[in-house]
Parts: sequence; C-alpha cells; structure tokens
Amino acid sequence: MPDGVGAAAPFERLAIVGLGLIGASIALGARASGAAATVVGTDASADVLRRAGELALCDEIADDLGDAVRGADLVILCVPVGVCGALARDLAPHLAPGAILSDAGSVKEAVVREVSPHLPAGAVFVPAHPIAGTERSGPEAGFAALFHGRWCVLTPPPGTDEAAVARVRAFWERLGSQVETMDAAHHDLVLAVTSHLPHLIAYNIVGTAADLEAVTQSEVIKFSAGGFRDFTRIAASDPTMWRDVFLHNREAVLEMLGRFNEDLAALARAIRWGDGDALHRFFARTGEIRRGVVTSGQDTPEPDFGRRRGEDGPPPA
Amino acid sequence: MPDGVGAAAPFERLAIVGLGLIGASIALGARASGAAATVVGTDASADVLRRAGELALCDEIADDLGDAVRGADLVILCVPVGVCGALARDLAPHLAPGAILSDAGSVKEAVVREVSPHLPAGAVFVPAHPIAGTERSGPEAGFAALFHGRWCVLTPPPGTDEAAVARVRAFWERLGSQVETMDAAHHDLVLAVTSHLPHLIAYNIVGTAADLEAVTQSEVIKFSAGGFRDFTRIAASDPTMWRDVFLHNREAVLEMLGRFNEDLAALARAIRWGDGDALHRFFARTGEIRRGVVTSGQDTPEPDFGRRRGEDGPPPA
Repeated sequence: MPDGVGAAAPFERLAIVGLGLIGASIALGARASGAAATVVGTDASADVLRRAGELALCDEIADDLGDAVRGADLVILCVPVGVCGALARDLAPHLAPGAILSDAGSVKEAVVREVSPHLPAGAVFVPAHPIAGTERSGPEAGFAALFHGRWCVLTPPPGTDEAAVARVRAFWERLGSQVETMDAAHHDLVLAVTSHLPHLIAYNIVGTAADLEAVTQSEVIKFSAGGFRDFTRIAASDPTMWRDVFLHNREAVLEMLGRFNEDLAALARAIRWGDGDALHRFFARTGEIRRGVVTSGQDTPEPDFGRRRGEDGPPPA
Repeated sequence: MPDGVGAAAPFERLAIVGLGLIGASIALGARASGAAATVVGTDASADVLRRAGELALCDEIADDLGDAVRGADLVILCVPVGVCGALARDLAPHLAPGAILSDAGSVKEAVVREVSPHLPAGAVFVPAHPIAGTERSGPEAGFAALFHGRWCVLTPPPGTDEAAVARVRAFWERLGSQVETMDAAHHDLVLAVTSHLPHLIAYNIVGTAADLEAVTQSEVIKFSAGGFRDFTRIAASDPTMWRDVFLHNREAVLEMLGRFNEDLAALARAIRWGDGDALHRFFARTGEIRRGVVTSGQDTPEPDFGRRRGEDGPPPA
C-alpha cells in the first residue's frame, strides 16, 4: 500500500448506483479493503438487484434510488454515461449535506456537463474513470481485484473542493489503483486513442467478418487464432455502454478516426504498389510501444497473455 | 491423440530451414512427439545458428543449406514467404529422391506459384500453414506446445501425391494440431479476414497513436489497459514476416480492407449523426462470434485471457 493511503478516513456509507461489472467490483473492492464501512447498492433492473442480493455483493440492497443514496457520504454512478445526467437529477434531492458524488464513466467532459447542473448546494462532484474492465458484463462478472495496478483518472472541474478530491483519490488507492488527475477534455482525447478507437475498430472488423458471403462464419471462428480472436474479445463488451461512449465523445473519436483512416490509406497504398520498404518501416516502429506497455505493468509479458496451453506452455519472459 | 495418428510412419530425417519462433517450435514439437527420428536445422543467420545450438533445439545444426536438406525425407521452410521461392531453387539440387518439401507460410497461393517451378522430379511439395504464433520472434521464443489444439491448413495443388499429403497431415497431428485441407486461394481469403487484416489494423492504430502530438507516448502506454494494449501485442509481431504477407496476399487483403472501410464509414456516420440505435445494433451482434471462438477452443474463456492479477484474480468462467 503506497505511502499516505489511509490518511484520509474511509467513507461511512458508500452508495453504488448500477451493479454491473464495474459497480459490483467497486462494491467487492470497497468491502475487502475497508474503503467504506457500509456499502449499499441499487440498480434500475429488478433482475440485477435480485442477482446482486444472491451474490451478497453489498451490505444492503435498495430498490429505490432515494433510499440508496440517503445518508451516503459517497455516491458512485456506475452506469452508461448517457444516463448519468438523469440519475443525478433524480438522486439530487436525497443527497446528504456534504456528500461526494462521483462516477465511473469512460467519457468525462459530457458527464461533467450533464451532471453538474443538478448538484445541490453543499454536495461535491468528483468525476472519476477507473481504466479497468473485462469483456464480461453484469454483477456476476465483478471481482475485488479488478482495479489492482490499474489507473483511475479524476477530472475535477476547476474550483472543486480539494479535500473531496483527496478523499476520492484515497478511496481508489485503497482499491489498489494508481490515481492521476487531469483536465476532462484531455482525458477524453487520451481515451479516444487508447480505448474508444480500439473498441470501434474491433467491433467493426468483427462485423465485417460476420457479413462475408465467401467465408463462412464457422471458418472465421475456426481460424481465429491468427489474430482475429483478440478482436472478438474486445468486441464482446457491453453494447449500451459503448453506444453511449461514442455518442458522448463524438468529436475526439471522429478526430482520431480521421487520423487512423489517413494512416490506413497510406498503408493500403504501400500494399497496392508493393512498397516493401515502407511496410517494413511502419511495422518495425511499433515494437517500442509494446515494450513500454509491458514494462509499465499494463500487460503481462507472457506470450499470448499467458493463455493457458497446458503444463508445457510458453516459457516465461 | 485422435484415431489414426501414428498410422503413417514418422519421418526419418526432418530438415527445418529457418529457426525463428515457428521453426524452433516445430523442432521442439517434432522431437517431443517422435514425429521425426532426427531433426536438423539451418538458418541464414550465423547468430541464429549459434543461439539454436546453445538452446539444443535440434539434433544437428547445419550452416550450409545443402548439407541441411541432404538425405532429409521432410524439409520445412519456416521463413518469410518472400524468400520461399529462392530457397526452393537453392535447395532443389540437394533434395533426396522422394523427399517431401513443405512450408509454414501465412500465404499459400503465392508460395505455391513461386516454389513449384523449382521442384525436382520425384520430390513432392505439400504447402502448409500452422495457424499458431505469439508476438515473440527468434529461436528463444519456440516451445513444443505452440501447435497444440491449433489448426494447420494444407493446400496441396490438384494432383499432389496423396500419400505425401497423408504423411504431412500425420506429422502435424503428432505435433498436436487439427488438420484441414483447402484450396490455396480460399485459404488466402479466409486468412485475409482472420489474420492479415487484424494485423494491418493493429499496426495502423499503434502507429496512429505513436504520431499524436497532443497525447504523449507515455500517456498512451499508461492508459493502454482500456483496449489499446491488445493491439500493441499484435503489432509487436515480426515486421519482415508481415511485410511479406501483405506483399504476397495483396488482392485478398485490399478486398477485405475495402469492406472494412465501408463498414467503418457507416459507423462513423452513425457517431456523427448521433444514431444510437444503429450503434447499439452493430455492437450487439458481435457477441455471438466471440462465444463461437471460445466454445471452439480457439481462445480461453477467462476474462482478459487469464492475464494474471494475483491470487484474487477474476473468477473462472
């Protein structure tokens, strides 16, 4: 545990709104780490509430949004970014004085714009984005270690109460994350490159493959180990979450997509004209970024991500 | 071990030309499984030969191509597809009568076209493509289990000696692969979708990210867990191998890239005009392909490919 963690007191009562992969993992992580004394969870879906109850994710389950947030000193919205504004409006009258409202959305400028107007006097909004996830969805997908060693980005608007920001930072550090603070617009640009565009591309290529008439879907699946399977994992993520990401980070995504398309056109031209030197130059320069990803701890160095291959699997790095 | 394996006698002497990831893995797999009594390896690089010797990958190391293939009843070219033709020409005079020549190239029509003219009378060419690999290169990257549970596609031209095809099939089955036979042109189309296009896209997005001025490379690396890291692994593959793949499967790759671009333009349009229904529809239909990839054994069902997250990692599927 890094120095200074625990300096800020844990929260008394954490309310989690939305019990999917992220909400369930925060509930489990907060309870396992003692980041909150009591965790209450709620969800718009009665089915999700029932499953969350069976999994005992939270200390309390509330089927009413007002009941869930009443008396909480930290409320985290773990929902698609498109509904954050409406939820903030609905829960605002029930927020305790001095409560901190936060979220876990993958887009920050739009969420700040849509949530802030509903914030009652005395409450503080500290937008957050834990950069962690798997291709799974729903409360069953949650696990306490999801945030271990991952980054959580806070994007407090100028003038946000610094003590509240420090408490949210300490919360995420207790869950095992490293925390960084940045401007919301810059966050959205960085994530457009490192997350939103990769997802768009992965969804697209899987869709292209699904439409082919000359190659059957069974062939695509059978021979997917040549690279395609990695895209299918990314393209198995929650469709509602991703629809909202693209609708709410439109400018940055379209800007990055424009650059991607220019580069791809240049590669296509090199292929068409047989320019092997250009292709080799392009393919050779990306290895350094890979080494950075591995040495910075954002991926395992094992070949194929350590996919299990039996006892006589790949050698360790 | 499936029925029928071992029905064809193992090879007496296997010569492996090129001791990178694939050649080294074939050497180790053939020795571990008894698919060949003696394995001799050669490589154009003196440095690779020295490392292969230190690793004891083969029973014999030959620094001369003629010495390597002389007396071999199976010769496998494990080199970038662009040099298969020249190597076939150079080794042809040294091939034993009745020898089988094979390869491991990711493109088949061009290799058949470039290798066949050099084949001496009495020798048989059985083109093969083991669909397996990792992002690593070089003899140190090899491991015997690389081909376990993976597909190996044979593309013998019409009229190829059936006994020779059966022996190569049995060889790959001994190394743990499932074997499929198909037309070379169809292979190249299928692989353009499931492997070549995914690699092109991955190289391209990593290159786009590397060029950004507003986002530093360290930010791209730091926040890569949002999807980007999966592309960096694919884009860390051997540049020479991939240059040759694109130069030798040009038509199929450009055709698939054209379809990909049309689909991507439609997605971009939906983002620009805020068409959430179209986005959701598109994102929802790719999950079925993911389930197929997992149930067919071409990927692990564990979230994040079972990337190790400490003892309290993701729950099993």
